[in-house]
Amino acid sequence: MTNAQLTLIQIDNYGPWTVTPNPRREMDLQTMQSRLFADLAQFIGGRGGYVFFTRFDNMVAITNGLDRTDHDLLQETIGNRYPVTISLGTGTDPSPIVALESATAGLQEAGSAQDGDRREVRFGEYLAEEQRTPEDVQIAHFDVNDATGKYTDQLNEFDSFIQIEQGYATLMRYLREEHGGLSFFVGGDNIISICPGMTEADYRESISHVEATAGVELKVGVGIDKTPHGAGMEAKHALETCRHDGTVVELGTHQDDVEVATD
Amino acid sequence: MTNAQLTLIQIDNYGPWTVTPNPRREMDLQTMQSRLFADLAQFIGGRGGYVFFTRFDNMVAITNGLDRTDHDLLQETIGNRYPVTISLGTGTDPSPIVALESATAGLQEAGSAQDGDRREVRFGEYLAEEQRTPEDVQIAHFDVNDATGKYTDQLNEFDSFIQIEQGYATLMRYLREEHGGLSFFVGGDNIISICPGMTEADYRESISHVEATAGVELKVGVGIDKTPHGAGMEAKHALETCRHDGTVVELGTHQDDVEVATD
Amino acid sequence: MTNAQLTLIQIDNYGPWTVTPNPRREMDLQTMQSRLFADLAQFIGGRGGYVFFTRFDNMVAITNGLDRTDHDLLQETIGNRYPVTISLGTGTDPSPIVALESATAGLQEAGSAQDGDRREVRFGEYLAEEQRTPEDVQIAHFDVNDATGKYTDQLNEFDSFIQIEQGYATLMRYLREEHGGLSFFVGGDNIISICPGMTEADYRESISHVEATAGVELKVGVGIDKTPHGAGMEAKHALETCRHDGTVVELGTHQDDVEVATD
Amino acid sequence: MTNAQLTLIQIDNYGPWTVTPNPRREMDLQTMQSRLFADLAQFIGGRGGYVFFTRFDNMVAITNGLDRTDHDLLQETIGNRYPVTISLGTGTDPSPIVALESATAGLQEAGSAQDGDRREVRFGEYLAEEQRTPEDVQIAHFDVNDATGKYTDQLNEFDSFIQIEQGYATLMRYLREEHGGLSFFVGGDNIISICPGMTEADYRESISHVEATAGVELKVGVGIDKTPHGAGMEAKHALETCRHDGTVVELGTHQDDVEVATD
Repeated sequence: MTNAQLTLIQIDNYGPWTVTPNPRREMDLQTMQSRLFADLAQFIGGRGGYVFFTRFDNMVAITNGLDRTDHDLLQETIGNRYPVTISLGTGTDPSPIVALESATAGLQEAGSAQDGDRREVRFGEYLAEEQRTPEDVQIAHFDVNDATGKYTDQLNEFDSFIQIEQGYATLMRYLREEHGGLSFFVGGDNIISICPGMTEADYRESISHVEATAGVELKVGVGIDKTPHGAGMEAKHALETCRHDGTVVELGTHQDDVEVATD
Repeated sequence: MTNAQLTLIQIDNYGPWTVTPNPRREMDLQTMQSRLFADLAQFIGGRGGYVFFTRFDNMVAITNGLDRTDHDLLQETIGNRYPVTISLGTGTDPSPIVALESATAGLQEAGSAQDGDRREVRFGEYLAEEQRTPEDVQIAHFDVNDATGKYTDQLNEFDSFIQIEQGYATLMRYLREEHGGLSFFVGGDNIISICPGMTEADYRESISHVEATAGVELKVGVGIDKTPHGAGMEAKHALETCRHDGTVVELGTHQDDVEVATD
Repeated sequence: MTNAQLTLIQIDNYGPWTVTPNPRREMDLQTMQSRLFADLAQFIGGRGGYVFFTRFDNMVAITNGLDRTDHDLLQETIGNRYPVTISLGTGTDPSPIVALESATAGLQEAGSAQDGDRREVRFGEYLAEEQRTPEDVQIAHFDVNDATGKYTDQLNEFDSFIQIEQGYATLMRYLREEHGGLSFFVGGDNIISICPGMTEADYRESISHVEATAGVELKVGVGIDKTPHGAGMEAKHALETCRHDGTVVELGTHQDDVEVATD
Repeated sequence: MTNAQLTLIQIDNYGPWTVTPNPRREMDLQTMQSRLFADLAQFIGGRGGYVFFTRFDNMVAITNGLDRTDHDLLQETIGNRYPVTISLGTGTDPSPIVALESATAGLQEAGSAQDGDRREVRFGEYLAEEQRTPEDVQIAHFDVNDATGKYTDQLNEFDSFIQIEQGYATLMRYLREEHGGLSFFVGGDNIISICPGMTEADYRESISHVEATAGVELKVGVGIDKTPHGAGMEAKHALETCRHDGTVVELGTHQDDVEVATD
């Protein structure tokens, strides 16, 4: 059984800030947002977690292995170096969506995202070291079969993007609704999902659904580990196996032994 | 009539690089990608253009005002500072999608995006200064009505994101298919579109389509100018007028006088 | 005759900010400072200028080719993306130190660097396009003879650093006092100087002085151009000639024809 | 007694890279160097260490609290995101200079800093957790008395810089020669030193020496802790006490109790 620790990172009062006193240059906003995300990726990634840019003003991270002290430091270091501050809500649950609901609710109870007085909120609980297990995190890494050959090298870039985007939009809804999983586009033709305990059959159905609905053919590697980075790396290696062997779903070796075998 | 200069920025051989010799840490890839995008945003934005992250390995920019020398420098400075290089294709046309098709085709003819020997390609034409007019660029800046009140402060962040995402997926297809316009999610509840000469009625229809199809209510400010930055700023101010006056479509003052009045 | 345009970039009220409300983490200050400098280097460098980190809270740039609009944009984009703002003073003169004196005086007259109300000051004059000539900028690029063999590969890093530092401290004072030139350590064993019209003999004397005083052996390549980047590149190529030919002073080809020949 | 863990960070074969195949744009080199330093500052600083830019191609860090795994990750993440790689040597000793000598020697033995085949070297020992004590790190934070009033607001920026620089050059040599301490200019009028167990009298003598030799008046706050960050923060607070009380040397409270009282 998985046990995800999800962190919601919300820029405080960001919308109003972007137009105060006048609308700011869009490319400056894009620069600031993407660098803030990059810094979060380094901070969280260097401690074994994963963060996704989501909407940039609200970013979702899976942070198994990061404790309260790490979150304190993250909030402080961003506040020291950016013109904006961040609030952090954390939740834990076997279901990723439930964990995120808990993380989000904590911030919402503290006030609106556009409340100018609500700054640097901290909310939530963290997995204690003794609660953690080697099956806490299940990461699925999807990509599109031959995206370069079928799209990038054939269509104009926007039409390639539409194909990838529609595949992503379909998968994100399916995994959310059917499994409570959280899927994020991470660039190229790649989607990474934070999943609950799902089986090989579950993944095959997901891929069939996307192909039937959006006409986009996916494959997936899956990893399970104590940390997001560990699970994600296992998923990447499993996806490499798909590429070499022409298979559609590959479960990392860890999962074969521990999770799926006993399912 | 608009006359967009579109630039496709493609990281050379990126997919293979990310797994050579072994899959690289995902958070390092995210960091590198988003910082590369931030640097492009500063470079292009500081010269009056706009760039969008699109798929990160392929990014789309509107670059009216940037000439061949600027593109030379961009390619050189990225090559000096990143572990990857970029190829650049440029095209111009009254229709944004046609301009991008031209830009993309140039790179495709030079070889595959995953051809390890195809590096730092340059292709395309640039608008000569004497060709440029004050109506070359039309930018539409959409946002979601009361996204904070309806989504961010109510739903968990992933479900908020799904709403915004479905609105975006619907709009991007509609504007592409009906008008040849290119729409990009830029964070929060914001979408920026590179549009051909569209009228107020065209925008009203687009918004109605998104509401009918995805259930997401948008409003839009539109700007026209010689440069993307100029048009984008006019669009932002027009969107502020929507917010204050409760209107759904606002055309910037420039457009009132010059473009739409004569349509 | 040279005609340098110098820009002083001063972070507003920085000292007090670093300890308000409490001392901030040193590594956050270092990160913020060095990234601010990097952004200035990209902005100014992409427009043909050079900037040096100097004291980080005060940075010196040579900005021939950047006009008032460029400086406006620089101030705006930094203000949009950093937790601090910058003031900019500009001066022009055949003598670099006189140009910088003028740039500095403008900011000093507007108030103290630690006056919390003095923010985003702009002061100064810019070289008009018609005033500019191909001999406006003289850049000298020094390095230490065989620094790797004599220091880096032999001494502990701090003792290597002391050697380089003492060479730099000696050169910076000599060129300042004798010629009104401005010298900046740029990393490794490299020093870049903004010089007035100096001759080969002047450079030989400078190098002799440093060797006699600090025991550090330098060589130098010199370039002259309309822009700092052009002059700096010529200087780098000249320094490569020193390396290959074992010479101590090399003047770029441009200088041979135009400046030195007529001296 | 202190017990410093020093890490030397050396960019592999950097000099040759900067001129291959031709000299690279200086502002790109400056950007890359300073961003690399910023990333090191975040990585090391977020784990309780301090890093100094030194010569940029060789950087010195005090890394008490970072183990082998942290150094592995640092080397990997830089290699993933930069066009250059780094080698890391580590040493530990009560004397900072001896620790650095050990760290440097390890890299030197592996080959020259300009050996193209010597890449991503790792050398050294790390303090085991059970060896670590609350007095391992002594950090001194110096600044110049009224630098803004006497220099920044009075002189042109280069002459201000010369004053600060000469003060630094004098202090760095004195502490190195007399105590084996390592001093680094960190911007503005600030110098941070990694010191062995030094007393209040030692600091008074250092300050007197700099005033007598270079005419620059310093004051200093000193902190002692298990980690560089802890000691550095204590030093910053002690320096604030100097500022408020007009004193010249202040030892942090920790030191009063533990180190100096027993000296």
